[in-house]
Amino acid sequence: MSTSLGVNRRILLSSLALLPALIGPLRPISVQAQARDPLPSWNEGATKASILDFVARVTTQGGPFFVPVDQRIATFDNDGTLWVEQPMYVQLAFVLDRVKAMAPMHPEWKTKQPFAAVLDGDLKALAASGEKGLVELVAVTHAGMTTAEFEKIVTDWLSTARDHRFKRPHTELVYQPMLELLAYLRANGFKTFIASGGGIEFMRPWTERIYGVPPEQVIGSSIKTRFEMKDGAPTLFRLPDINFIDDKVGKPIGINEHIGRRPIAAFGNSDGDLEMLQWATLGASGARFGLIVHHTDAEREYAYDRQSHFGKLDVALDAAAVNRWTVVDMKKDWKRVFAFE
Amino acid sequence: MSTSLGVNRRILLSSLALLPALIGPLRPISVQAQARDPLPSWNEGATKASILDFVARVTTQGGPFFVPVDQRIATFDNDGTLWVEQPMYVQLAFVLDRVKAMAPMHPEWKTKQPFAAVLDGDLKALAASGEKGLVELVAVTHAGMTTAEFEKIVTDWLSTARDHRFKRPHTELVYQPMLELLAYLRANGFKTFIASGGGIEFMRPWTERIYGVPPEQVIGSSIKTRFEMKDGAPTLFRLPDINFIDDKVGKPIGINEHIGRRPIAAFGNSDGDLEMLQWATLGASGARFGLIVHHTDAEREYAYDRQSHFGKLDVALDAAAVNRWTVVDMKKDWKRVFAFE
Repeated sequence: MSTSLGVNRRILLSSLALLPALIGPLRPISVQAQARDPLPSWNEGATKASILDFVARVTTQGGPFFVPVDQRIATFDNDGTLWVEQPMYVQLAFVLDRVKAMAPMHPEWKTKQPFAAVLDGDLKALAASGEKGLVELVAVTHAGMTTAEFEKIVTDWLSTARDHRFKRPHTELVYQPMLELLAYLRANGFKTFIASGGGIEFMRPWTERIYGVPPEQVIGSSIKTRFEMKDGAPTLFRLPDINFIDDKVGKPIGINEHIGRRPIAAFGNSDGDLEMLQWATLGASGARFGLIVHHTDAEREYAYDRQSHFGKLDVALDAAAVNRWTVVDMKKDWKRVFAFE
Repeated sequence: MSTSLGVNRRILLSSLALLPALIGPLRPISVQAQARDPLPSWNEGATKASILDFVARVTTQGGPFFVPVDQRIATFDNDGTLWVEQPMYVQLAFVLDRVKAMAPMHPEWKTKQPFAAVLDGDLKALAASGEKGLVELVAVTHAGMTTAEFEKIVTDWLSTARDHRFKRPHTELVYQPMLELLAYLRANGFKTFIASGGGIEFMRPWTERIYGVPPEQVIGSSIKTRFEMKDGAPTLFRLPDINFIDDKVGKPIGINEHIGRRPIAAFGNSDGDLEMLQWATLGASGARFGLIVHHTDAEREYAYDRQSHFGKLDVALDAAAVNRWTVVDMKKDWKRVFAFE
């Protein structure tokens, strides 16, 4: 046997020595999954069962709902689905901190809105500046540098910024049950993508380390860039012009642009995810899965939905009932919310 | 050993039975590569050696040029780099055929430019209609239907259209040496992407089957889409508005948007690929690889460069010399051009 394969004794022996490490991959995935609970932070019940059931269906070879590996595409919203979005989106906290950090170089901001509102911590005046004010803040904090420089700014900020309530880095305020879900899907052949209204280049510096989602599987909002050769080195310079808003109808559009096929599973938590969930689950044959994280736990995290300023969940919650999307009751379904608990 | 891993005898025995199939993966990749020629359609010489040398460098663990697997990103132009682009881009042949197929429903086209030029086969009048005329032709042939409908139109056309010179489907006019190169890079842990000036949704229906590149790893030019719920089913409707042109400076911009990190290798054949090659290879540390396919074989394929209407290679050829990019001399470096030879 070995000679016909051109394998010498030494390689065969070292192969055998490696066998224990290989036993895992050799076993069919469904056996692996049964061996231990793949979702230990999820309480037993209908929600957890719906996830396990869906994955079992699409991975059962020869079964009526089997889906080939290359078509196992799952898309996840980020804010409120994978990490905390209250009391404000993390990216907005970044904007406010950046304005403060940049203020010494802009003395005129002291008397100029919306900057003065940020520097004075006057959130009411900030809100009064409306979308125009916000766009202006995003422009000065997100544009005017190269993509490499922006990546460093984000990375540096995340390493020092702390959530005010939990006193922890934002990258620790990720939902442990969702991390398990991401890993569980990948272990079952899924390619996991993020499709977020947040900035694509605000997420990419850390999604691989925190979520196991590489930069090329992150979809988000973006500003335009300009290619320039500078002292013999190519750069992409970030411009103060919106390129794409990856929210609401933008989510299926962005998913189509980046992935080019429809996901078979989508995970969100707000009205901004409605169209993504529709795109993944409706009017298509085969098993499809939609899931909405409902924030019901004011004690361990936050409780909000129909009237919330960030992550409003209203139309999508009604749609979930009609379309049989799984709704996670955070308080009831999650054994723990964060890894540090 | 087996009990501590929770592995029962049956699993262990079936694992052993599978061992021959595993010997390949167990051997280090460099050993695999030596076992047989991974690029059999490439003649021996400096060009082939430069490819093998680059891959050996970035995959040699502990070596000075080692690159972790997740950063092994390679981007390929399509027209003229992976398949034939003469005497005209395949997508232009598609446009002309579509206009003819749609003409019975548009009697007014008989006397209206640029349509009349297409119907009369008058390429001179077509050229006279300029970019405006071309945009009009693209609009009527590429927009006005859903993404799913367009995918079917492309797939149907490709299954019947034949190249006039070679009398074969366009998907057979792909360069065998480049297919081997794609497979060789993937076998060495690379993720291979297409970054083409061609339409992203013109390529996605067939790139996985022909090149082994899945839709989510295809970057190209695009038109805008609109999300609509139609009879309870979500659709993306293709609009006659340009969204993105993935050519020249658009290539690094598109690559950054889709991948979010710089490739370490890029492959092109024309001035449209210059900025992609710069983005992949210049001003960055570590081993980088740029390659240009120079069409020098009028007998087996075509010979063209500095003055060509399609796939003009002028500035990029000069840049290749300065930047030490590998230039493929198709006639000399390729043992065969197509698989059917």
